[in-house]
Amino acid sequence: MTIRTVVWNEFAHERENPVVRDIYPDGIHAVIAAALGRETDFEVSTATLDEPEHGLSQTRLDATDVLLWWGHKSHGAVSDAVVERVAGRVHQGMGLIVLHSGHFAKIFKRLMGTPCSLRWREAGERERLWAVNRTHPIVQGVGPSIELPNAEMYGEPFLVPEPLETVFISWFEGGEVFRSGLTYQRGAGRIFYFRPGHETYPIYHNPEIQTVLRNAVRWAYNPVAWPDVAEAPNVPVAEAPEKIEAKGAALHHAGEEGYR
Amino acid sequence: MTIRTVVWNEFAHERENPVVRDIYPDGIHAVIAAALGRETDFEVSTATLDEPEHGLSQTRLDATDVLLWWGHKSHGAVSDAVVERVAGRVHQGMGLIVLHSGHFAKIFKRLMGTPCSLRWREAGERERLWAVNRTHPIVQGVGPSIELPNAEMYGEPFLVPEPLETVFISWFEGGEVFRSGLTYQRGAGRIFYFRPGHETYPIYHNPEIQTVLRNAVRWAYNPVAWPDVAEAPNVPVAEAPEKIEAKGAALHHAGEEGYR
Amino acid sequence: MTIRTVVWNEFAHERENPVVRDIYPDGIHAVIAAALGRETDFEVSTATLDEPEHGLSQTRLDATDVLLWWGHKSHGAVSDAVVERVAGRVHQGMGLIVLHSGHFAKIFKRLMGTPCSLRWREAGERERLWAVNRTHPIVQGVGPSIELPNAEMYGEPFLVPEPLETVFISWFEGGEVFRSGLTYQRGAGRIFYFRPGHETYPIYHNPEIQTVLRNAVRWAYNPVAWPDVAEAPNVPVAEAPEKIEAKGAALHHAGEEGYR
Amino acid sequence: MTIRTVVWNEFAHERENPVVRDIYPDGIHAVIAAALGRETDFEVSTATLDEPEHGLSQTRLDATDVLLWWGHKSHGAVSDAVVERVAGRVHQGMGLIVLHSGHFAKIFKRLMGTPCSLRWREAGERERLWAVNRTHPIVQGVGPSIELPNAEMYGEPFLVPEPLETVFISWFEGGEVFRSGLTYQRGAGRIFYFRPGHETYPIYHNPEIQTVLRNAVRWAYNPVAWPDVAEAPNVPVAEAPEKIEAKGAALHHAGEEGYR
Repeated sequence: MTIRTVVWNEFAHERENPVVRDIYPDGIHAVIAAALGRETDFEVSTATLDEPEHGLSQTRLDATDVLLWWGHKSHGAVSDAVVERVAGRVHQGMGLIVLHSGHFAKIFKRLMGTPCSLRWREAGERERLWAVNRTHPIVQGVGPSIELPNAEMYGEPFLVPEPLETVFISWFEGGEVFRSGLTYQRGAGRIFYFRPGHETYPIYHNPEIQTVLRNAVRWAYNPVAWPDVAEAPNVPVAEAPEKIEAKGAALHHAGEEGYR
Repeated sequence: MTIRTVVWNEFAHERENPVVRDIYPDGIHAVIAAALGRETDFEVSTATLDEPEHGLSQTRLDATDVLLWWGHKSHGAVSDAVVERVAGRVHQGMGLIVLHSGHFAKIFKRLMGTPCSLRWREAGERERLWAVNRTHPIVQGVGPSIELPNAEMYGEPFLVPEPLETVFISWFEGGEVFRSGLTYQRGAGRIFYFRPGHETYPIYHNPEIQTVLRNAVRWAYNPVAWPDVAEAPNVPVAEAPEKIEAKGAALHHAGEEGYR
Repeated sequence: MTIRTVVWNEFAHERENPVVRDIYPDGIHAVIAAALGRETDFEVSTATLDEPEHGLSQTRLDATDVLLWWGHKSHGAVSDAVVERVAGRVHQGMGLIVLHSGHFAKIFKRLMGTPCSLRWREAGERERLWAVNRTHPIVQGVGPSIELPNAEMYGEPFLVPEPLETVFISWFEGGEVFRSGLTYQRGAGRIFYFRPGHETYPIYHNPEIQTVLRNAVRWAYNPVAWPDVAEAPNVPVAEAPEKIEAKGAALHHAGEEGYR
Repeated sequence: MTIRTVVWNEFAHERENPVVRDIYPDGIHAVIAAALGRETDFEVSTATLDEPEHGLSQTRLDATDVLLWWGHKSHGAVSDAVVERVAGRVHQGMGLIVLHSGHFAKIFKRLMGTPCSLRWREAGERERLWAVNRTHPIVQGVGPSIELPNAEMYGEPFLVPEPLETVFISWFEGGEVFRSGLTYQRGAGRIFYFRPGHETYPIYHNPEIQTVLRNAVRWAYNPVAWPDVAEAPNVPVAEAPEKIEAKGAALHHAGEEGYR
């Protein structure tokens, strides 16, 4: 069984900012894809904003098991149609891993239904991510904590729904805390938000961060697809599990589709 | 303290369908508003689709504590801008009660992030809503179950996120079950989904259903507003709770706003 | 990798009641063990109340990955010490599947912290279990619903904590509903409560029920153990992640253990 | 409406340790009771370990709406019968607020079902509690964070179930984090765990901590009692909501009580 994984990147800062280019000369997606590619059962490719349909055609998404999302300065440039398409595939069972500044990506706000806001500071301060549950599949091979010498601070309150599980909580040198690893399910799709990643520091070169990403792909992978998850089928009276007879007035004609 | 409540209705079937008109001659919103109006500390008004801005101007929403939402055949006619405005107010703390076919309303899908799909059958069959937690504020004065002689069936799977609380589960004569009362929080706003209501049966004339609606308004009311819930303020280095000094390269200039 | 599974049974009604004996001549545990044993990577054994230490010595539990629990009339005969031992192993990561009348087993109440009460009726009525999430690993191979021609009714309210996930909800011929499949985690251990099973009906001979049990064992299996999960280690000042100096008065002497 | 509140204290360190006695000459319970007593609708009293039945007779508990629990070195001296009695009242709807070292109190472990373990260090270090949800009733009047100049550190992982809501997360000077405010429901009773309180620092004299305690009492108060929450009543066939006839063999005689 192969886990078909796509690493998506807006690929902006790496081409504009010399500091970021030095760290990620081929883009953040390239480094992440290489890290994931060490797993022999992952089939890894990348996609970027400036490709046709941002590299996320329906055909490609239909052949994707887990999608990783990096965006920062170009959230607004992502087409609403592509966002809706990605959301639909998550509902059908595609896993989604949202990275760092992706908290404000359209796709994350679309799936959370909340502002996804937070407080932030770019001071290269120290961050320490504590694993709240040491036996969670996502934290295997790391911990009890991951220390990052330089990180952008994200501080609570983080405006997301109560998660299924809180996996990581971060400590920051400057005095704040943040829920840095959170799990959700939306439709049949599993979602993991993972905070680290500011692009002026070599976060995705960190072996422990890479381990978490590999674990997260495996965790988010749902081998069972639910293609018609968004359908609302009418169950005819004759097919009710219990024998009943229709009573009273009806709004719909027999066999009519419902309203949406 | 007054709870300013608005009952919103697309107000379509009551004007087109004689069966529905007989049950709700002045519209579903009128019956619900009358039921809520018995509470002396509720200030109740109504709004409908064909009013300017669907009756939901920013000024009006800013003066609304709890909004009830009825929609069915005209979901698509609701302006995306108004949906976004309502979502914003929910995030700031406005309560939202979504009724029956409102499961497919844009505002509910916007806040859940899921397809909100289900199975259905219109056969006038019997429904019995069981209170899962008898001491929940929303079920006071009713129960242990509410019986509706004629109801449209909604069947699981209901494609919503795992709720904060499951308050009601329905039994249907035809053999299905449904999670009929679910609570959520999105930003500072509390949300209650309540299933009963098909418009060809006099559901909102039922005293127990009316009691649940009054309870739900009280439960959804959040006296504390969070106006800037969607902001993502920068915390300057000099204002960090702990004394730190900026290290390393920076993407942002001092005082610059973050990307959205 | 082998999943070492133990099926525990009080083994009472099968020896006393001719109806039950006819259905389960060698005990419920024997039928469940045979059903699980079809998986080539499960190593399945059984244990019963009247064995020394109820067949659940520390050594045996330490070599058990997933435990299934059947009890009904002899809950009170289970030793408190064994219950505590099983709870400790669940905390360390052993999976636990609690069956039917096990809702009142000491071990289930111990792990839930609630009364675990419910309403019931023994009338051989029809039950239909609806899968709330069709892509959950526990429901693969069955569904959308499982129909049991004869079942004991369990009705809401079921006094358990809000679950991580609601997997099944039951419909009963007599008009009640019940959350029949619920997931929890306690410490590192995953717990699945599964309702069907009344011993005067051949529930565990049902192929779909057997499929759910096999799925549940696989789901509950946690390959990562956490042996010292209950420890509360002191972190000496000199080993704090950040350099600090002790300030103020102390209650504990250096190196002293905490109170429990 | 009066909220009848009891502050329970093992009252040990204040009588043995001069540092603690200086801070709490009449005991921690006296300071907390005085802080709560400022609310005109709270009726506040105290109880301690060495009173008959630890001051928690059934009669007294039946007349208590919210119980606060302080224990540290004498957890083991609390009678199991009293613990069971308190758990029973929580199930019926009494609120419970567990303070600091109470994480290892028998009553907390009884209600959580988990080890409730954590890491700790007594170094008088700085703690900052961040409010994760600024509109939660428990955090009104404080925040965005509460700073304590000297605190005992509690570090993750904290072995409790996933909470209903994470209300506070703590930052510690020495580099750890902790979920310091968590809500649960067990039966009809609401539970709030609140971390601050080490007795060698004047934590409960802090006005913000006192505000949180007052808020928490109000939040935990459930005006609706559920006296028979632990009963498992048989629903006779003749009283089934739907007309059914008993089929098949029965284990129980008509009207017989179920097994427990």
